Amino acid sequence: MSSIRVVQFGLGPIGQACVKVLVEKSGIELLGGIDIDPQKIGKDVGEICGLKESLGVVVRGDAEAALAEWTPDVVVHTTTSYLGDVEGQLATIIRAGAHIVSSTEELFYPYRRDPEFCRRIDQMAKQHGVAVVATGVNPGFAMDILPLCLTGVCTNVTKINVRRVVDASRRRLSLQKKIGAGLTPEAFAQKLAGGHFGHVGLRESAFAVMETLGWPVDEIHEDIKPVIAEERVTTPFLTVDSGQVAGLHQVMRVKSGGRERLILELWMYVGAKDPHDSVEIIGEPLLSVRLAGGIFGDTATVGALINTIPKIIHAQPGLRTMVELPVPHAFLGMKV
Amino acid sequence: MSSIRVVQFGLGPIGQACVKVLVEKSGIELLGGIDIDPQKIGKDVGEICGLKESLGVVVRGDAEAALAEWTPDVVVHTTTSYLGDVEGQLATIIRAGAHIVSSTEELFYPYRRDPEFCRRIDQMAKQHGVAVVATGVNPGFAMDILPLCLTGVCTNVTKINVRRVVDASRRRLSLQKKIGAGLTPEAFAQKLAGGHFGHVGLRESAFAVMETLGWPVDEIHEDIKPVIAEERVTTPFLTVDSGQVAGLHQVMRVKSGGRERLILELWMYVGAKDPHDSVEIIGEPLLSVRLAGGIFGDTATVGALINTIPKIIHAQPGLRTMVELPVPHAFLGMKV
Repeated sequence: MSSIRVVQFGLGPIGQACVKVLVEKSGIELLGGIDIDPQKIGKDVGEICGLKESLGVVVRGDAEAALAEWTPDVVVHTTTSYLGDVEGQLATIIRAGAHIVSSTEELFYPYRRDPEFCRRIDQMAKQHGVAVVATGVNPGFAMDILPLCLTGVCTNVTKINVRRVVDASRRRLSLQKKIGAGLTPEAFAQKLAGGHFGHVGLRESAFAVMETLGWPVDEIHEDIKPVIAEERVTTPFLTVDSGQVAGLHQVMRVKSGGRERLILELWMYVGAKDPHDSVEIIGEPLLSVRLAGGIFGDTATVGALINTIPKIIHAQPGLRTMVELPVPHAFLGMKV
Repeated sequence: MSSIRVVQFGLGPIGQACVKVLVEKSGIELLGGIDIDPQKIGKDVGEICGLKESLGVVVRGDAEAALAEWTPDVVVHTTTSYLGDVEGQLATIIRAGAHIVSSTEELFYPYRRDPEFCRRIDQMAKQHGVAVVATGVNPGFAMDILPLCLTGVCTNVTKINVRRVVDASRRRLSLQKKIGAGLTPEAFAQKLAGGHFGHVGLRESAFAVMETLGWPVDEIHEDIKPVIAEERVTTPFLTVDSGQVAGLHQVMRVKSGGRERLILELWMYVGAKDPHDSVEIIGEPLLSVRLAGGIFGDTATVGALINTIPKIIHAQPGLRTMVELPVPHAFLGMKV
């Protein structure tokens, strides 16, 4: 079996972390990186990612020309959370004939947010014989694929409760900023009113779970509140004083047929006590699952992306979701 | 979408439990049952299964003729744990052009136990355009699909530890007998020496996990010991006195490349304290998962079987495993 030829599209923190794992996997050949940052273009991908050795492959800014030259099998796409920003990037990759594994949260289950976008991407992917899928830890696993997988042994399910309590102190700076850590409560309220704030993807997880289980979403309500620090918290990146915002508490409640069917609850703040993930399947049998310490998201997102590479090359062409792909599992490389 | 037309093949405790769930699912049409027991043949399936109302479909003993008449889409096959006993049954179903979802433990991942059997069934299934898969809670979920799914967010895995502690008091009589509950330690030792004793399927789970992760199985060692009751335990079916066997402790240890990679540990005895399932993925990130109370196996096996019905009709023809099918999830019926 020959190597899978991969390009890393987007060299922010997640893209850089992907490169570090990709180069360790036998069976993966990294062809190059793509980014818009002039500081990165032209440099060795290894240098950009903080590796000790250069990789002999470079970062380019001209995606279309680079992909035409490299002709990758799969592109790992890690640029932004929002559908509205990625259509051009996806189209460029699809036209180059490469499968896509993306970290774009809104792409995980995009059918309700933008059906027209989905039709366009699906059609284009089918024309070019490639498959497109988005994954990650959340959305992509903790609040959707894992709960769904657990229901796989249930003869009936009436409700699902998922809770993530994440200590953001250990996470990357961009995530700490995204959740408002260090803001005043007033600044948090302003940011919230401005939109594009809070963790992206609860809605996508909710629709994926509900529609896969055959529960039409009749009502969906999301609530985001600040978590106020009760004492000073210092992370490697910033300090949050008592009374400032430590992060957020975000809850998605979903009803179908007049019944509450799904609650997705995310506590993500610096200094969170007792971090964990839990899933409760109210069904037959009842399942009460707890992941002590929680799933470390920065690593898990990278794992989810890279483990999907061998699966996407065998998927049916078109816009796909993780629900359609075979059960996820680690890709440990071909000779490990 | 029209209903999926199903026949229940085998009307022991698991088959009867399947019927009770099947008849509750919209989108499933139960055509009849098949069994070899003269006490059951000719009777209404509902009556055999202890339902209050007759179902208007009967139990037949002439499988070939019955299947030719009924022409089911899918047969739910629940007869025995062992490969050696099911080839004729599977062949009859395949020749009738029906997909198979089976509870036969040794069929969950049969490639190492009997490659020739696999070739024959795979070829026959492909000839008839049907797919064959086996599932359940163990093997089928707790010690294989769930751990594999968890590794789906790992960038690396070095070892997996799975433990099930099952209080057999709550399980069916046939299971209590299977684990030796009520035997003297001497009788347990004799049964063990006689073979076909202990929980079936740890080996299948082990090979499925190891080979899916790309770890060749170099050494595999299974150990079964009795758990001796320290006090009298009474179940709805039997009484175990202090000093008698309460059940078993079964451990499978698997090495690859000189390293221990997988431990599957099953405590299954009447009166077990703190029943639970746990999975520990030693990897990046580390995942420590606990299902409080454990997964109630009698129900979960039925759930696993029935939830696979809508998936098997879309699978590639041939002998399949749950690792190849899309991520499992509950099938709640088409109009629930």
